[in-house]
Amino acid sequence: MRVLILGGDGYLGWPTAMSLAAQGHEVHVVDNYMRRNIAQKTQSEALIPLPNLQDRANIFHSLSNKKIGVTIGDIANYRILSKIFVAFQPEVVIHYAEQPSAPYSMMGFDEASETLNNNLNATMNCIWAVMEHAPDCHIVKLGTMGEYGTPNIDIEEGWLEIEHKGRKGKFLYPRAAGSLYHTTKVLDTDLLWFYVRTYGLRVTDLMQGPVYGLETDESEQDARLLPNFHYDDIFGTAVNRFLVQAVAGVPLTVYGKGGQVRGYLNLRDTLQCVELAMNSPAAKGELRILNQFTETFSINKLADTIQRVGNGMGLEVQIKSIPNPRKEAEDHYYNPSHSGLMELGLEPHYMTDDVVATMLEQVISYKDNIDVSKIMPRVGWK
Amino acid sequence: MRVLILGGDGYLGWPTAMSLAAQGHEVHVVDNYMRRNIAQKTQSEALIPLPNLQDRANIFHSLSNKKIGVTIGDIANYRILSKIFVAFQPEVVIHYAEQPSAPYSMMGFDEASETLNNNLNATMNCIWAVMEHAPDCHIVKLGTMGEYGTPNIDIEEGWLEIEHKGRKGKFLYPRAAGSLYHTTKVLDTDLLWFYVRTYGLRVTDLMQGPVYGLETDESEQDARLLPNFHYDDIFGTAVNRFLVQAVAGVPLTVYGKGGQVRGYLNLRDTLQCVELAMNSPAAKGELRILNQFTETFSINKLADTIQRVGNGMGLEVQIKSIPNPRKEAEDHYYNPSHSGLMELGLEPHYMTDDVVATMLEQVISYKDNIDVSKIMPRVGWK
Repeated sequence: MRVLILGGDGYLGWPTAMSLAAQGHEVHVVDNYMRRNIAQKTQSEALIPLPNLQDRANIFHSLSNKKIGVTIGDIANYRILSKIFVAFQPEVVIHYAEQPSAPYSMMGFDEASETLNNNLNATMNCIWAVMEHAPDCHIVKLGTMGEYGTPNIDIEEGWLEIEHKGRKGKFLYPRAAGSLYHTTKVLDTDLLWFYVRTYGLRVTDLMQGPVYGLETDESEQDARLLPNFHYDDIFGTAVNRFLVQAVAGVPLTVYGKGGQVRGYLNLRDTLQCVELAMNSPAAKGELRILNQFTETFSINKLADTIQRVGNGMGLEVQIKSIPNPRKEAEDHYYNPSHSGLMELGLEPHYMTDDVVATMLEQVISYKDNIDVSKIMPRVGWK
Repeated sequence: MRVLILGGDGYLGWPTAMSLAAQGHEVHVVDNYMRRNIAQKTQSEALIPLPNLQDRANIFHSLSNKKIGVTIGDIANYRILSKIFVAFQPEVVIHYAEQPSAPYSMMGFDEASETLNNNLNATMNCIWAVMEHAPDCHIVKLGTMGEYGTPNIDIEEGWLEIEHKGRKGKFLYPRAAGSLYHTTKVLDTDLLWFYVRTYGLRVTDLMQGPVYGLETDESEQDARLLPNFHYDDIFGTAVNRFLVQAVAGVPLTVYGKGGQVRGYLNLRDTLQCVELAMNSPAAKGELRILNQFTETFSINKLADTIQRVGNGMGLEVQIKSIPNPRKEAEDHYYNPSHSGLMELGLEPHYMTDDVVATMLEQVISYKDNIDVSKIMPRVGWK
């Protein structure tokens, strides 16, 4: 299949590109290096320095003899995306091209406005490029479980049947996200749903939880092919922060009470999910929404796991609660369903102690690169 | 009160400015003439040529001795809005500054992208200008009843209590609008709700139905102070289209079956509603949503009313169904609540035969300006 990947330099975009190219798909990636630029600007460089996207594609080609086409350009500029669509004629477009940092989106007006405009225009342009140049193309869009927030009722997969005063209707599940970044993904979903129901597009919107892990079949071949690993307060997830803190000998910083529950998944499972979605596309006029995670646990449980495994490896891991820089429920009901991708064939890789040990070992091998000053929160929601 | 009106040249912005200035409020208006420019570009000029905004403010001043401050500028540019906030320090900001045409937003990529970017950035900038320069300022935002679409359940005022699998939660009422323009207002509401719950802003989001009428206490003094009256397919409402068709002697064009029901209100009631909202502001951290209309009727009912009144005045009014250029339900359940503004004290002016006759007389006095080629739909949703 001809697969266009928007945001191909990212933590998920790059492994997806390699994985699909390795399987024989024709892959083209686009990226504007927004994450790299923000990382530089905010002193949030990744743990492992990585070659640029074209160099990575060249290294991958020399190892696998598989070609990945590269465009460095900004798809929030419609002309750039249009030209790529006309030339490449994608059968599926995988849309990761969003400013992905919640704290960055909360720094101030400029960062908030940049996030809103980048993310909404990327999605809008993707929709229109499909409508104008490849109307049968399947859009696989990465949303986030964070769109739902932490409601007091069970989270269904994207849609909710509502009975109200004796009448029934089916609606987009109501969303209330915890950061501007997450809110832009709510807006993306609203926008996609409008164009899907009006013009009969095919869209899969994947509500993904936090992803962890570095290893994929392709990245194992050469460290220069690893996905980026951020542990800073801007791009780092709680998993990465805890792994680095465990290795650096500083306490794992739990935000507030630590009862925040989320649905997590392994990077290998993201690759599976995207491929499963791609191989059984949404129907014309269907906005298919799938909740993409394999297991839920609290921040306290995550910290305990990393402490236990770290201590077993001879690290001395402490846990410390710090004031929560975010505005979020620290103790809440959370029961999201996630059967759709399992039904499509997802075979989960859970966060076992072995998986945690492997991640800790990877971080240990880059221990000298750790800069603990990057870890503590610099952005508050106040 | 110091009242800043965004979109002060518009059909609603201008009468609001005069009405509040007449009552002694300190009023400043901003407009970028987007509607005037689009009207020129699309051959959709209003029935009654009107002076520009500064000239209208001067005419109003000479008649009333009340001053309305004017800035011609684009609030989608944050620096422009920021400067106005710093200088004027508004206590309430009334935000009408959106590209308001559904058909225009459906013409093609450029118009859709312009609508999305103008409307979202206007709202985003308004939010941030309040947060940075006037944190206690009450935002009165004009949404639309069109945000809800035509669901199969009763439409509540903005919020819905949902019981699901034995648990309860309160959510933004799920929305599904019928054009990109209406969808941008859904996104506005999502954005406002995020910032309200995170930073404790005060916001009233008025879900307004189609407004009709030209007369207000202030416009009666001088025809140059009339609000703009569009009957074209881009900016004209069904009410205006039917009035002009009745006067021009061409059939009233009902789109499809004509069972489309909407909630309407008189221009005088918009002025009341905005003032009522302003005088009892939302609390800090409250997104108050009010459904702003006074009565519901179908397009067929509207056509029948205008035909009956027109024929009574000696016009020969025909009604003709034409293929619906839009994608919308033509026969649907519709039961929206609208008690909030009544409880605040709204005293409705309904669309009586007298009101219709007055509007027909006004159109008759500008009969020579009618260009029937502007009326038929030029933009389809296909």
